[in-house]
Amino acid sequence: MRVAIVGGGQLGRMLVQAGERLGVACVTLDPAADSPAAQVGPAIVAAYDDAAALAQLVDGADVVTYEFENVPVGAVGALDVPVLPPPAALEAVLLTDVGLPVPTFAAVEDVATLAAGVEAVGLPAVLKTRRFGYDGKGQAVLRSAELLEDAWRAVGEVPSILEAFVPFDRELSIVGVRAADGELRCYPLVENHHREGILRVSYAPAPDLTDELQAAAEGHARAVAERLGYVGVFAIELFQFGGTLLGNEMAPRVHNSGHWTIEGAETSQFENHIRAVCGLPLGDVGVRGHVAMVNVIGQEPDAAEILAIPGAHLHSYGKRARPGRKLGHVTLVADDPDSLRQRVVQVARHLTDA
Amino acid sequence: MRVAIVGGGQLGRMLVQAGERLGVACVTLDPAADSPAAQVGPAIVAAYDDAAALAQLVDGADVVTYEFENVPVGAVGALDVPVLPPPAALEAVLLTDVGLPVPTFAAVEDVATLAAGVEAVGLPAVLKTRRFGYDGKGQAVLRSAELLEDAWRAVGEVPSILEAFVPFDRELSIVGVRAADGELRCYPLVENHHREGILRVSYAPAPDLTDELQAAAEGHARAVAERLGYVGVFAIELFQFGGTLLGNEMAPRVHNSGHWTIEGAETSQFENHIRAVCGLPLGDVGVRGHVAMVNVIGQEPDAAEILAIPGAHLHSYGKRARPGRKLGHVTLVADDPDSLRQRVVQVARHLTDA
Repeated sequence: MRVAIVGGGQLGRMLVQAGERLGVACVTLDPAADSPAAQVGPAIVAAYDDAAALAQLVDGADVVTYEFENVPVGAVGALDVPVLPPPAALEAVLLTDVGLPVPTFAAVEDVATLAAGVEAVGLPAVLKTRRFGYDGKGQAVLRSAELLEDAWRAVGEVPSILEAFVPFDRELSIVGVRAADGELRCYPLVENHHREGILRVSYAPAPDLTDELQAAAEGHARAVAERLGYVGVFAIELFQFGGTLLGNEMAPRVHNSGHWTIEGAETSQFENHIRAVCGLPLGDVGVRGHVAMVNVIGQEPDAAEILAIPGAHLHSYGKRARPGRKLGHVTLVADDPDSLRQRVVQVARHLTDA
Repeated sequence: MRVAIVGGGQLGRMLVQAGERLGVACVTLDPAADSPAAQVGPAIVAAYDDAAALAQLVDGADVVTYEFENVPVGAVGALDVPVLPPPAALEAVLLTDVGLPVPTFAAVEDVATLAAGVEAVGLPAVLKTRRFGYDGKGQAVLRSAELLEDAWRAVGEVPSILEAFVPFDRELSIVGVRAADGELRCYPLVENHHREGILRVSYAPAPDLTDELQAAAEGHARAVAERLGYVGVFAIELFQFGGTLLGNEMAPRVHNSGHWTIEGAETSQFENHIRAVCGLPLGDVGVRGHVAMVNVIGQEPDAAEILAIPGAHLHSYGKRARPGRKLGHVTLVADDPDSLRQRVVQVARHLTDA
């Protein structure tokens, strides 16, 4: 099997590595010659919408997949090779369509509709672009009606949604994988901690996770995946508010809050994505103990200090350091929640930008 | 850190993959352009004793290591970069020197000394070359004194050892890793099953493993490693005979009977080797449940059939199929020994040459 991957960041890199092990040859397309994926496998260096490069990418490939949402849907959808997940999943999904409650929101087209939205939704509120954002980009928190124009400029003056700022208890996410035959498997809900819009730490399973909450999240995941005829790995970010889950957003790809699965689950999200898009049987999504994932942001830590922490697994993406940039992650596996939290603190102590 | 690896087979490939994850850049040297390691990372294609290629290999490297024993010791030892494990470990180790009992043996230089050896050792016996062999190569079982010349030709007419054929209960191996500061960590003893001189299945931990047996094996591993000033991963193959361990041979490298550690241990033998030769702290060698490794020999199985087996992890080395050739392996992880054995049987059913 040969898989063409649009995008060569760390997600592409980890997909390539998962494919390699299975004997599935992957090739990536990315504009950067030294992309994380290009360092670990064959890569084509070109713009995502370069027709000749796309043709070269899919030459001999059995399937095309992607590692990020801002794929040129037209160019990729026109290729003569199956694209999985289906390109329809690249259009922003309105989670309400599948019965998943979301915070109150209003559509925003310009400053006037933004003002009307503030009337309807109240403040504080979050202004988000309708196309997928990431790492806090394409989002602006609006706290005062006097700053409408600033917020509008901050999201790039594109069609957006103004969403009520929910006083949630915590942020969760569920990562699922759906096979072509419709089989769905979900990893346990994960608790996520963000700062400056960037994921910092995930705990898996989410502390105090109940069967009811997991079942509710899986029900939403199933509804979204079936509506889209989805094949591959996806993530849904959620807010928990008491016993209620509200949808935040859906990512039609492997997700940062699923990186813990490399060491923490029987089968990683990357291997399961490759399995799904190649039509291979899905792998076991069971968890091994108590797991945390800590992102390495902005600056690489001293590897020796991290690796001296029991149960610590360091992943480096081969990226140049830059403030706010995800350079790697550390997975921690422990037998009990207390040891896990202690180890997370130990790791965090060695991360200067976390 | 940069690591130069002499040899680009599957062991080199898995070392490269372990290095990648840690952000340790590895480059391999192998005469084959499509070596398993060349498919997953930078590689130099040249003979192992090509001085210019060796110079290129170590250019910018912090350390040189190797994935097999038949390294040109002179050429590698003369390099201006530290070599770990120390080249002395490449000379065959006489396990008796460190107090590990071995089967009765006699040195063989020619047919005449072979005949004398048969008198001393008895029959059946095993004739083994003194330099490291692998996968049954460099070995001949001698059952009749009439076949001395055949056996001598079979091992290539090189200095050898004639060893008594021990009626052992089972074959075991212990994989250990030693850091530059002398810290030693050993994985649990593994039970190995060979056929036609090729490892077929390993069980980890070895069934019915006792603390006493593990302690005895670790004592031998420590003695060998300390005698050699060893740094890195090594394996010692052992025969168990009642409560007694007899030494078979030592491999100064990552070992096939340690492949199960990728999914079955907290830290794989490959990552621990990279950590050790780079001077990084050693990783946890704890086991996750009951683990088996089944080699894929001669012909690749249908990936979908293997991956449909619960707990099965498929590893493909990117090698062309050939009878008797190791093409990959399958790791199985289970919660109990019975499920594990059932799964091994399921895997074996899909392997035509196993």
